Amino acid sequence: MQLQPEKIWRDVQAIRSSAPLIHNITNFVVMNNTANALLAIGASPAMVHAVEEVEEFVSISSALVVNIGTLDKNFVAGMELAMRKARELNKPVVFDPVGVGATTFRNQVSSQLLNAAAPSVIRGNASEIMALAGLNAQTKGVDSTQGSEAALHAAQSLSAHYQCVVVVSGATDYVIAQDQQAAIANGHALMTKVTGMGCTATALIGAFTAINPDYFEAASHAMAVMGIAGEMAAEKQAAPGSLQLNFLDALYLLKESDLKQRLKG
Amino acid sequence: MQLQPEKIWRDVQAIRSSAPLIHNITNFVVMNNTANALLAIGASPAMVHAVEEVEEFVSISSALVVNIGTLDKNFVAGMELAMRKARELNKPVVFDPVGVGATTFRNQVSSQLLNAAAPSVIRGNASEIMALAGLNAQTKGVDSTQGSEAALHAAQSLSAHYQCVVVVSGATDYVIAQDQQAAIANGHALMTKVTGMGCTATALIGAFTAINPDYFEAASHAMAVMGIAGEMAAEKQAAPGSLQLNFLDALYLLKESDLKQRLKG
Amino acid sequence: MQLQPEKIWRDVQAIRSSAPLIHNITNFVVMNNTANALLAIGASPAMVHAVEEVEEFVSISSALVVNIGTLDKNFVAGMELAMRKARELNKPVVFDPVGVGATTFRNQVSSQLLNAAAPSVIRGNASEIMALAGLNAQTKGVDSTQGSEAALHAAQSLSAHYQCVVVVSGATDYVIAQDQQAAIANGHALMTKVTGMGCTATALIGAFTAINPDYFEAASHAMAVMGIAGEMAAEKQAAPGSLQLNFLDALYLLKESDLKQRLKG
Repeated sequence: MQLQPEKIWRDVQAIRSSAPLIHNITNFVVMNNTANALLAIGASPAMVHAVEEVEEFVSISSALVVNIGTLDKNFVAGMELAMRKARELNKPVVFDPVGVGATTFRNQVSSQLLNAAAPSVIRGNASEIMALAGLNAQTKGVDSTQGSEAALHAAQSLSAHYQCVVVVSGATDYVIAQDQQAAIANGHALMTKVTGMGCTATALIGAFTAINPDYFEAASHAMAVMGIAGEMAAEKQAAPGSLQLNFLDALYLLKESDLKQRLKG
Repeated sequence: MQLQPEKIWRDVQAIRSSAPLIHNITNFVVMNNTANALLAIGASPAMVHAVEEVEEFVSISSALVVNIGTLDKNFVAGMELAMRKARELNKPVVFDPVGVGATTFRNQVSSQLLNAAAPSVIRGNASEIMALAGLNAQTKGVDSTQGSEAALHAAQSLSAHYQCVVVVSGATDYVIAQDQQAAIANGHALMTKVTGMGCTATALIGAFTAINPDYFEAASHAMAVMGIAGEMAAEKQAAPGSLQLNFLDALYLLKESDLKQRLKG
Repeated sequence: MQLQPEKIWRDVQAIRSSAPLIHNITNFVVMNNTANALLAIGASPAMVHAVEEVEEFVSISSALVVNIGTLDKNFVAGMELAMRKARELNKPVVFDPVGVGATTFRNQVSSQLLNAAAPSVIRGNASEIMALAGLNAQTKGVDSTQGSEAALHAAQSLSAHYQCVVVVSGATDYVIAQDQQAAIANGHALMTKVTGMGCTATALIGAFTAINPDYFEAASHAMAVMGIAGEMAAEKQAAPGSLQLNFLDALYLLKESDLKQRLKG
């Protein structure tokens, strides 16, 4: 599918005008980054993980983002409750299986969560998507050892199994649904040198699903915005400390003309 | 009350020369930011939450900051022990009820902590202060849905009930005590687009209470410094990634003349 | 011992070309910074702490970094399992006893971990190294109250007891082993105004031990790179918000000529 800058821009404006509350249960490394990215795009982020309150918080939120980065038994309990509640209330859920395939525990937790409540969107790198689909991927820590193309078959199988949209991040990002597919070639290699850019993509998908009920479109638009803001930041200064700052600035200052000039998808 | 730049500056110098140890039990999202803000103003921050050590750590610290952002049963136990110990030792306690009103759990925990040991200063946005005072505020996630003026009555009632200073953050910050009130109009709207600026204000209040036993003055001075550093940062570059960096630089480089030229309170 | 820029550069290149997976069990304040510093130098960081998976993760990693900053019973269990496993598999372990000496709990946990599995390298400030060696150091929170020279005797005793390399950070960094010693005078005072620079040094030592089996050399090289990147950043802009960003940029852009021109050790 060909993305349209006008439709991406419509979504950005919807986020900026409605400031949807995005409920995140995410990892310790990226909480600050993803909160700031959500604020910069115009959403209202909250990080809430305790079993005592996640269900109530889901009910006042517009989308739920679950990320297993710094996995921990206590967090898993909150994740499962929140995902079940979101599904019950028909709210979008975005799932990020960070490092799945690296340990048995990550595999078990991912299965447990996906089977408790299928998400609306799954986003991972090629290694993670392949591991999640049960293929014999070599996962090395939390970084991918595979190009995103290698995971297309796995993504299709995951998408069919959980009836959800699957995003494979990489030099080209692929967005896969039952009957459609998008490929987005925006972004910059330097983004892999900043921790949590994948997690940030996942959080942005949360913001777009909160205002666009077509989750395939929402996920595609989020990945396009992520890639475009990332390349604008990398062009400003080719070093990772600067990239993190310039990325947030670019998200906040994003104009429709940036989308029109830069979109490759 | 009219704030005096000379007295604010005296407090900044006291922090810089004595580097008071500030004990923080705070949320995962902002730990890094608030530690850096405390270092930038001249204090010595530590983040310590385990029940096994919080009391001992309170006894070597000059102030305690408790923030319920990413609430969690284990943290609550440490918070309560630390607050009781600080009160027993007559050390200042600053309490930040992040997101109170959004869930029953947050309401219960806030009541539990406040009743265990009344803090010296409470700081929140209008929604949080109104929720805390038991009024029927609409809280939406962790961002305020109300201007700070709306919470003045709630702040006065809270201040009377707990015999403490109450700060309502907003476009204008109000500092309320039994018999006095300050209104500080510094700051910049862009500060709401960076996560944890409220939590940072709370941490800075901790540093000022550590060196100024007049907690009304300490809280007012901290809010003035927060707002002035924030507006200096926003003027340098009008985007949120840059703001976070420039804010820390502004705090570190703050001069008496900045206070004199900019103070609106 | 006199450090050689060529050998430091050889190690930097080895990290950049092999991107060793560094397993971190570290504190909440610095997780983002240390992950970014490891990425900037060319390593592949992961933060994994759950007892259910740390042993499996150690087995796929090239080095383990353990940091007790935001100490917590659950983390301690994961730390001990991971350290035992790393020792069993002969993988390098770097230990950072943040704030040891400040509370009884920190002292107990440090003893427990060191006695369970002696690390390859211990890095701390003078107060921490003295506390760890059982000397009567005055520890104030997490910042050192002592110059690094004062801790040399303690470092030698620790090094002998645990048969490991000991690094004492300060204006001059000392690296101590049984039969050798290095003193590195790089770095900048402003680095003490950014939270987690010590923890970042510890993480970088992890990256160097992953590719250089001579841990004395690895630790010395890491400290030299840390100090040189820090002073390059401080010279660019003399304020702490900027330093954090410029430090990551400097690590990423580091050239052999920077080492040759700046090394003081």
